[in-house]
Amino acid sequence: MNAAAPQLHAFDQAISLRATAPNQFTGSTSEAYLNMVGPFGGVTAATLLNAALQHPEVIGEPVSLTVNFAGPVGPGEFEIEAVPLRTNRSTQHWLLLQRQDGQVVTSASAFFATRRETWSEQQIACPEAPAAASLAALPLRADRKWFGNYDFRYVSGLFDPTQAEESSDTESLLWARDNPPRPLDFASLTALGDIFAPRIFHRRQRFTPAGTVSMTHYFHADQAQLARVGNRHLLGQARATRMHNNYADQIAHLWADDGTLLLTSTQVVYFKE
Amino acid sequence: MNAAAPQLHAFDQAISLRATAPNQFTGSTSEAYLNMVGPFGGVTAATLLNAALQHPEVIGEPVSLTVNFAGPVGPGEFEIEAVPLRTNRSTQHWLLLQRQDGQVVTSASAFFATRRETWSEQQIACPEAPAAASLAALPLRADRKWFGNYDFRYVSGLFDPTQAEESSDTESLLWARDNPPRPLDFASLTALGDIFAPRIFHRRQRFTPAGTVSMTHYFHADQAQLARVGNRHLLGQARATRMHNNYADQIAHLWADDGTLLLTSTQVVYFKE
Repeated sequence: MNAAAPQLHAFDQAISLRATAPNQFTGSTSEAYLNMVGPFGGVTAATLLNAALQHPEVIGEPVSLTVNFAGPVGPGEFEIEAVPLRTNRSTQHWLLLQRQDGQVVTSASAFFATRRETWSEQQIACPEAPAAASLAALPLRADRKWFGNYDFRYVSGLFDPTQAEESSDTESLLWARDNPPRPLDFASLTALGDIFAPRIFHRRQRFTPAGTVSMTHYFHADQAQLARVGNRHLLGQARATRMHNNYADQIAHLWADDGTLLLTSTQVVYFKE
Repeated sequence: MNAAAPQLHAFDQAISLRATAPNQFTGSTSEAYLNMVGPFGGVTAATLLNAALQHPEVIGEPVSLTVNFAGPVGPGEFEIEAVPLRTNRSTQHWLLLQRQDGQVVTSASAFFATRRETWSEQQIACPEAPAAASLAALPLRADRKWFGNYDFRYVSGLFDPTQAEESSDTESLLWARDNPPRPLDFASLTALGDIFAPRIFHRRQRFTPAGTVSMTHYFHADQAQLARVGNRHLLGQARATRMHNNYADQIAHLWADDGTLLLTSTQVVYFKE
């Protein structure tokens, strides 16, 4: 790294967009975040959110985001259309469409709001976990290049097809952060919400073709809370409620290391067999 | 009811649409499903889904649905634009927009698919509950007219501001079905997924202005499973994970009375204070 001109983090490169016309942005897929087929979905989601975040008409901060993975994102350029569908006094609803060759590859909706201080309470407790520093980092994998941009430290529920036994449940618990470390923001939290292997991999400890179809994030944290996290690990927990005829759901939570719940996320995942 | 010309169920009247042009439908809000401000959101969600369900190009059955309540739905006519954004071999992604006076009041996305039989498993058990018939039906309320179209039988977690004590948790458990009974389908299941009072009402046992901002349903059931339910009660459970500065989430499940999980749903809810 050159101290005079610090290199952009691979994540910031991956989600960077250039405005081309009102509501129109262009970007390019990142080699660094390649998954088995196309880019890691978390980075695609973060890129769509980023179009709203850097739109000149944006108000408030993200409260919810739904991303629908409609078709494979091919390598190279893409267009994002970001339309503020409805702007109220302190809330804003967005439609976000990612296209390649004129065809929709990803669609999303986002809800932004200006929050005021109210009565607040966290209803679910952060699970007990040994400190991230006491756990081994997950080794890198050549077939999932995006792993290299994260530091994953599994507490339990690792998908490991070399295990002889199926798991009795679908729950995984792990620490995660960007690698190299990067201060947490809404875009990186969006991507971190998609780090969990398909629950069916862990449940059966074997691979089947699978991929997220739709993902919904609820951001419980505001910018000040994200800033307090800095670049420290988040604790992530994911489980499924039902897997049935090609589709399974996942409910996940991401906590700061002080026990604050930052994100509740659900997704529905295709699996082949 | 006239046996020769049976009257349409109020729910079918409420969600009925007329095609006006390719991808365009028109409908009208239903007096029978009025909530405190505008229509019950569950019926709005069902109406948007119905546009895709009756679209000539639809394939498969609903797997996921996200509905964003962007602004108040006024009494009277509305337009729905239903666009199949992307149709693959056995999957289809929809964009659904409800407008009044040219302004978006509700936006939604839906994912439909043709399912094949695969390895399947339900990971969460249906909670224990006394039979619906053994519980008293919730009395009707003049300020929430839509209650009259449902039969609600609370097992626990009723919002009742006359209680002296706050609740220690956010969980409610209840039986619910259409009133009069109506065979379950994807549209009615969509509406039933939104029957829970805002969790903050129950948690604090007092009222604050509140409303759903975005709701996501994952349909675990296919049409054959819904047909097996018929018009019997569903068991619904809802809880929150965090309430923070105007926004709270909710995770809900709806089970058939044989313990089959039909729907996992999340929503984010605005609350004033």
